Amino acid sequence: MLSQSTLFGLAVATLASMAAIIRYSHDTLTISLGFATIAGVVSYYMLPQLIPVFILSNIVGKDVLKKDRPVLAETMGLPAAIIYLVAMFLFVPFPFMSFFNGNATLVHDEQPIAGVFPYHKLSEILSALLAIQSMALLGFADDVFDVRWRYKVWFPAIAAIPLLIVYYTNFGVTWVMVPLQLRPYLGELVELGWLYYVFMLLYSVFCTHSINILAGINGLEAGQSIVIALSIAINDLLFIQDKQATSPAVETHLFSLYLILPFIGVTAGLLWHNWYPARLFVGDTYCYFAGMTFAVVGILGHFTKTLMLFFIPQIFNFIYSAPQIFRLIECPRHRMPKYNPETNKLEPSMASLQKKPVGKLGKIILKLFSTFGLVRIIYNEQGEPTDCNNFTLINLVLVWFGPMNEGKTTAVILLIQGLCSCIGFFIRYKLVQYVY
Amino acid sequence: MLSQSTLFGLAVATLASMAAIIRYSHDTLTISLGFATIAGVVSYYMLPQLIPVFILSNIVGKDVLKKDRPVLAETMGLPAAIIYLVAMFLFVPFPFMSFFNGNATLVHDEQPIAGVFPYHKLSEILSALLAIQSMALLGFADDVFDVRWRYKVWFPAIAAIPLLIVYYTNFGVTWVMVPLQLRPYLGELVELGWLYYVFMLLYSVFCTHSINILAGINGLEAGQSIVIALSIAINDLLFIQDKQATSPAVETHLFSLYLILPFIGVTAGLLWHNWYPARLFVGDTYCYFAGMTFAVVGILGHFTKTLMLFFIPQIFNFIYSAPQIFRLIECPRHRMPKYNPETNKLEPSMASLQKKPVGKLGKIILKLFSTFGLVRIIYNEQGEPTDCNNFTLINLVLVWFGPMNEGKTTAVILLIQGLCSCIGFFIRYKLVQYVY
Repeated sequence: MLSQSTLFGLAVATLASMAAIIRYSHDTLTISLGFATIAGVVSYYMLPQLIPVFILSNIVGKDVLKKDRPVLAETMGLPAAIIYLVAMFLFVPFPFMSFFNGNATLVHDEQPIAGVFPYHKLSEILSALLAIQSMALLGFADDVFDVRWRYKVWFPAIAAIPLLIVYYTNFGVTWVMVPLQLRPYLGELVELGWLYYVFMLLYSVFCTHSINILAGINGLEAGQSIVIALSIAINDLLFIQDKQATSPAVETHLFSLYLILPFIGVTAGLLWHNWYPARLFVGDTYCYFAGMTFAVVGILGHFTKTLMLFFIPQIFNFIYSAPQIFRLIECPRHRMPKYNPETNKLEPSMASLQKKPVGKLGKIILKLFSTFGLVRIIYNEQGEPTDCNNFTLINLVLVWFGPMNEGKTTAVILLIQGLCSCIGFFIRYKLVQYVY
Repeated sequence: MLSQSTLFGLAVATLASMAAIIRYSHDTLTISLGFATIAGVVSYYMLPQLIPVFILSNIVGKDVLKKDRPVLAETMGLPAAIIYLVAMFLFVPFPFMSFFNGNATLVHDEQPIAGVFPYHKLSEILSALLAIQSMALLGFADDVFDVRWRYKVWFPAIAAIPLLIVYYTNFGVTWVMVPLQLRPYLGELVELGWLYYVFMLLYSVFCTHSINILAGINGLEAGQSIVIALSIAINDLLFIQDKQATSPAVETHLFSLYLILPFIGVTAGLLWHNWYPARLFVGDTYCYFAGMTFAVVGILGHFTKTLMLFFIPQIFNFIYSAPQIFRLIECPRHRMPKYNPETNKLEPSMASLQKKPVGKLGKIILKLFSTFGLVRIIYNEQGEPTDCNNFTLINLVLVWFGPMNEGKTTAVILLIQGLCSCIGFFIRYKLVQYVY
């Protein structure tokens, strides 16, 4: 299955990571990088071996955008998430190693709180893992049972409760800074109080589901997640370089790195096999797992706003979809692009504008989208609009760039995601001075 | 599906619990009891509604000990575990309520550790929930994919890592008290060091799998768990009554109650539908979930030895099974009792003693078991032993009491479990003075 040279490369990577862990056991970031590499190697090597197990258990899906519509193993995000969690469980002691190896003191008496052990940091990691693991469990249940939207939409909010408790006790910051332009009216700070906790719950709901909404072609779910995760990691590194080692901001960004590096590892391993033409599917399990990881990192790392800059394509996709979701324009059951077996390329799938008459608001939206080149409308001989493309980012890309092979379509969307991250960085580090 | 009077009863129980939560919001134990009741009501009401969903997704099993071998929904321990986890997530803030409602101070500054918030208690609950949730996830994966024993046997040990970190930082106690009789040789205390952590890992492995091993007839898994859980709750209450409210022992036993009461709630709801004749199966998910809950409570509640006294039937079943597991006596693939459709009763299933010759050690064991009435041997006309019952507690009960209806068999085993708990209490509170 794997060539000898690949195996050799993997073995070298694993050994190098282990050597790094041992050599730099005083540097937690190096250790995290080591765990990330090992987690990546394990998922790259293990996932293909699990394919027959999943097929035997009938956890499968049809790859409908191929000529022969092959049946592939589904829900491979589950083993990926488990590998991630095992890596994290094994990693948890390392940030506190100085308390275990005798280099720092640990007080055990009737009042453990009197000790110097950073329980608040431990609580952070534990609540983060609890939230992420909850979503892996829900995602798996969703893949097996097809849970209804009205139930599953709220699950991330419940999973995030321990996170909020830790947020409350560790930071408790519930004000937001007001942009310069609005300060004459609102003042410098606005105290949101408990509304801020509602915001964080909704935030975790949005992150968790947004990966799942921009999905449907090979490599897209894992691909967008790896771009977002890399953006987070770069942002963390910029912060850490910038500040002094003891500042609390450095600590929160280190925390973010500890969570995101192994995530990048397992996602890379998963993406390798999920890339066009896919050998396996990632499933809702992966999407929820990835989305909650981002939410956790954003909330506990204190950069919810910056994180949203890396979600620009997801936010666009969500807003762009709204006219169909709210039924202003007809919404077919599936909005995936259309596969053309003649050319082996994807084409935008269309929604009928005649099945039921388009209302006034629908017409305004069509006009607006048309002005900005966001829609392709097909007219009949009488010049009446009969169809338009379905409003998803995937279809829009196919409208803009013309029919493309599936792998190329994914690559173009990931490129867009990457460009948006660059714009995000520009806003965060350059434009910010005009706003705050 | 549910009669109106049942619904009325459930509604009253729920409302009463909510009233209690509001009225006694200063008393965390009452709140825990309220959550336990609500969790029980929800699982009693919700599980039957999920049966068609599970059957549609083909998560089913055959009830082979019935005349018509009906196909039932499997893995119903999953929704039970999720209800438990949701209840616990919602409950987590309550033990710390005094820090949230202004009755106590919470310090937010550069050094959160300087605050008085009991992060160490929060870490305990979070690590406990993390371990329990890990096992629900593994159990579900096992039910769907049938994970091999050599892999799954070690999973509880990984899930318990965060637990051990919290144990280390909060208690760090790794010595054991030596029984009086051995003190002349070993001294009063024996320091086990890191061996104690290995012990705790093995302990969680044992607890998690031991429920799964004593299983196979309607109501047995949930039934034995509820007896063990009630024993734990009674032991906790004895402790709390005995000591002063501020003692650390009271705190750990309260912690144990917070975890075990909602567990009793969901298990009661589950058992109702799983009792003979079962409408649903609990699955490995439930067994792992239950076993890990016990392990967590025993480890963080500091009563691993007392807990083992409530596991006497499981320990007996394990030791009794050993000769077959280690192949000293032939071990058929399934050792479930035999169903006799004529009488509608269960009879002990038998293993052949002639398929392959019984070795010397096997013969000694047969003789020993025979002396204590622990085996039924069938002889042929030449007076040679041809068969013996399979070595499980279920079969042994059928040997002792003769063929019984399945429901009655479960009831007898649960009675034995209850009697063993009584013996356990006697040892713990009366005999203990002769040993420690």
